Amino acid sequence: MSPRKVTIIGSGNWGSAIARIVGQTVKSFPDDFDSEVRMWVFEETVNGEKLSEIINTRHENVKYLPGKTLPTNVVAVTDLVQSCTGSQVLIFVVPHQFVKGICNQLVGKIPENTQAISLIKGVSTEKKGGLKLISEEIRDILKIDVSVLMGANLAPEVANDNFCEATIGCKRKAQDGMMLKRLFHTDNFRINVVEDAHTVELCGALKNVVACAAGFTDGLGFGDNTKAAVIRLGLMETTKFVEHYYPGSNLQTFFESCGIADLITTCYGGRNRKVCEAFVKTGKSLAEVEKEMLNGQSAQGPLTAEEVYLMLEKTNLTAKFPLFTAVHKICQGQMKAPELIDCLRNHPEHMQF
Amino acid sequence: MSPRKVTIIGSGNWGSAIARIVGQTVKSFPDDFDSEVRMWVFEETVNGEKLSEIINTRHENVKYLPGKTLPTNVVAVTDLVQSCTGSQVLIFVVPHQFVKGICNQLVGKIPENTQAISLIKGVSTEKKGGLKLISEEIRDILKIDVSVLMGANLAPEVANDNFCEATIGCKRKAQDGMMLKRLFHTDNFRINVVEDAHTVELCGALKNVVACAAGFTDGLGFGDNTKAAVIRLGLMETTKFVEHYYPGSNLQTFFESCGIADLITTCYGGRNRKVCEAFVKTGKSLAEVEKEMLNGQSAQGPLTAEEVYLMLEKTNLTAKFPLFTAVHKICQGQMKAPELIDCLRNHPEHMQF
Repeated sequence: MSPRKVTIIGSGNWGSAIARIVGQTVKSFPDDFDSEVRMWVFEETVNGEKLSEIINTRHENVKYLPGKTLPTNVVAVTDLVQSCTGSQVLIFVVPHQFVKGICNQLVGKIPENTQAISLIKGVSTEKKGGLKLISEEIRDILKIDVSVLMGANLAPEVANDNFCEATIGCKRKAQDGMMLKRLFHTDNFRINVVEDAHTVELCGALKNVVACAAGFTDGLGFGDNTKAAVIRLGLMETTKFVEHYYPGSNLQTFFESCGIADLITTCYGGRNRKVCEAFVKTGKSLAEVEKEMLNGQSAQGPLTAEEVYLMLEKTNLTAKFPLFTAVHKICQGQMKAPELIDCLRNHPEHMQF
Repeated sequence: MSPRKVTIIGSGNWGSAIARIVGQTVKSFPDDFDSEVRMWVFEETVNGEKLSEIINTRHENVKYLPGKTLPTNVVAVTDLVQSCTGSQVLIFVVPHQFVKGICNQLVGKIPENTQAISLIKGVSTEKKGGLKLISEEIRDILKIDVSVLMGANLAPEVANDNFCEATIGCKRKAQDGMMLKRLFHTDNFRINVVEDAHTVELCGALKNVVACAAGFTDGLGFGDNTKAAVIRLGLMETTKFVEHYYPGSNLQTFFESCGIADLITTCYGGRNRKVCEAFVKTGKSLAEVEKEMLNGQSAQGPLTAEEVYLMLEKTNLTAKFPLFTAVHKICQGQMKAPELIDCLRNHPEHMQF
C-alpha cells in the first residue's frame, strides 16, 4: 500500500493542537503516511487577512491556537471536498453540530476503504430519544469505518507538549490499530488502542453529564467525600449504560485514559463543572450562566443529559440511573439541586449485597 | 446469638467520627448489637480535665473532634483490655505504628470468634521487604478474622454528616457481611460490602503513593492532563501490584469507594499530595516539609512507597512499576522530581498493543 494521505477536518483549538502532533508523526513513518497533512479550514478573516493564508505562510493558527507553531507540512485547505479528496485517513475534529452537514457534502466523494477517526466528544442531537454516537452518524452517512480518539486532553496543555495519554477505540484493531497509533503517538502524547470503540466514545460523552453532577455538589458546598461519591456513582452509571445499550463492553476500557482519567479532569477542571457550580450558586438559569461564562456557547453536559434521559425514559430505565436522570431534571429546572443527594442515597449501587 | 458488644479501639479524629455513626446504628439493630459501644481512649489531660471524663460527661471529644456531639451510648474506657473484654466486634482505628503493641496486650484475652475490622490506611512497617497488611498484623497476633473498611472518607466531612460512601472488605461476607454493613451503614455513610478484602486494604494503602506522584506533578507545574495520566498510571500499577502479590482480586473492587473514589480525593485534597507538592516547590527535604506542614507527623505515602519498593526490588519487579519506584527514589533524594515523567513515558501500559 502506498503512503496514506491524511486530512484533518477542523482547525479549532483541538484540531490545531492535533495538527501539531500529526504533522510531526507522518514524517516519522514515510512508509505509512504521505508527508503532507491537509487541514480543512472554515475560512475567516482575521485582522483583514484570510485565516487559511496566515496558516499557510506563518504556520500559526492565530485565531484558535495563537503562539504555537504548526508544522510546515500542515497545509490549510478551505474547500472541504478538495481537502479530503484522495485521503485515506480523515480526522474529524469539529463541533458536533457540524458533523452531519460536513458528511453530507462528502457523500460519494470518499472511497469506502477510507478510515475515519473522530475526536469529537458528545453525542448526536439529531435523534431524540434514540442516542446516536458521532461515529455512528459519520458511518451512516459516509459508509466508512470510524474509530475514535478520546482521553484527558485539554487542548492548551496538549499544545504545550505536556505529558498526557489518550485512547483510540478501533473496532478493526488488528487491521488499522497500529497505523492509527503511529499517527498520534508521540513522546508526550501516549496512545493505547482498544477494540472497544463504543465504550471509548461513550466515556467521552457521558463524562460531561457526570461533571454536571460534580458541579452541582461544588455549588452546594459539599466537600471532597461527596464529590468523590458522585464521580464514582456517575462512573458506575456510565458502565451500566454502556453495558445495557452497547453490550459487550470491556471493564478494562474504563481504566484507560478515555475513562477514569478524562472523567477526573472533567469533574475538576472542565467547563461543564464550572457552569453547573455557578448555576447552583447564582440561582440564574443555565442559559444565562452559559451566556455569561461560555461566550454564548453551550456546555455539552446538559445537552448530552437530555439525550440520555430521553433514551432512559423510552426504555423505562430512569430508576436505574438516578444520577443521569437527576442531572437532566436539575438542568431543566424540574428538580432542585439539593435533591441530587436524595436521589443518590438509594442508588441501586447501595442496594446490592 | 445474643446481641454483640462493640468496641472502638481508638478515639482520634477518625475514631470519634466513626463513634458518631456506630453509636447510632447499634440502637437501630438491637437484635444484632448491644446498645453500649465502648471506645478505648488513650488517657490525656485537656485543660486539667481527663479526656475520658470529658467524653463520658459532656459527650464530646474536645481534643480530636471538637464541636461534635457523641452519642451518649458511646462510653470511653481507658483500660485497653477492659474496653475489649466480652466484645464480639473490635473496630481498629489507631495510627498504624500502635497496632502491634495494642494487639500484644490483647493476646489471650480475645476469643477466636471475635470479628475485627480495621479502618487503618497504611501498611505495617515491621517487615522490611515483605509487605504486610495491617489486617495481617492483627490476624497474626490475635488469630481472629479481620475485615477492613476503606473509602473516600475525610473524617471532618464524615463528622459533618456529608453524604459519602465506604467499602467493607469482608472475606466471610456470607457470614459477617450483613452484620458489618448494619454497623456502619447510615443515610449519609453508604456501605458496599465486597469479599475481596486484600484489594480493599491495598487500595487504601497504595493510593498514598500515587498521591505523592500527583503532588510532584503539581509541584512541577504540570496541568490537569498530566496529573490525570499520573493518577491513572498509579491506579494501573495498583491493580497490577494487587494481582501479583495477592492474586485473585476482582477488577470491580477498584470501582468501589475504596478504589477510584478514595484515590481521587487523596490526589486532590490529601496531605501526601500537599507535602509532595511543597517538597518540589521549596527544594527542602521531605522531613523538613513534613515538620513544617504536618506538625511533626509523617505522611503515609513515602513510608508506604519504601515498603512497596523493597518488596518490588526483592522480587525484581521495579521495571514493571515505574511510578511506585520513582516515588520512592524521589522521596529519598535518589532521583529528581522531573525525572518522574521520563519514567512514565515508557510505562509498560504504553508498550502493549
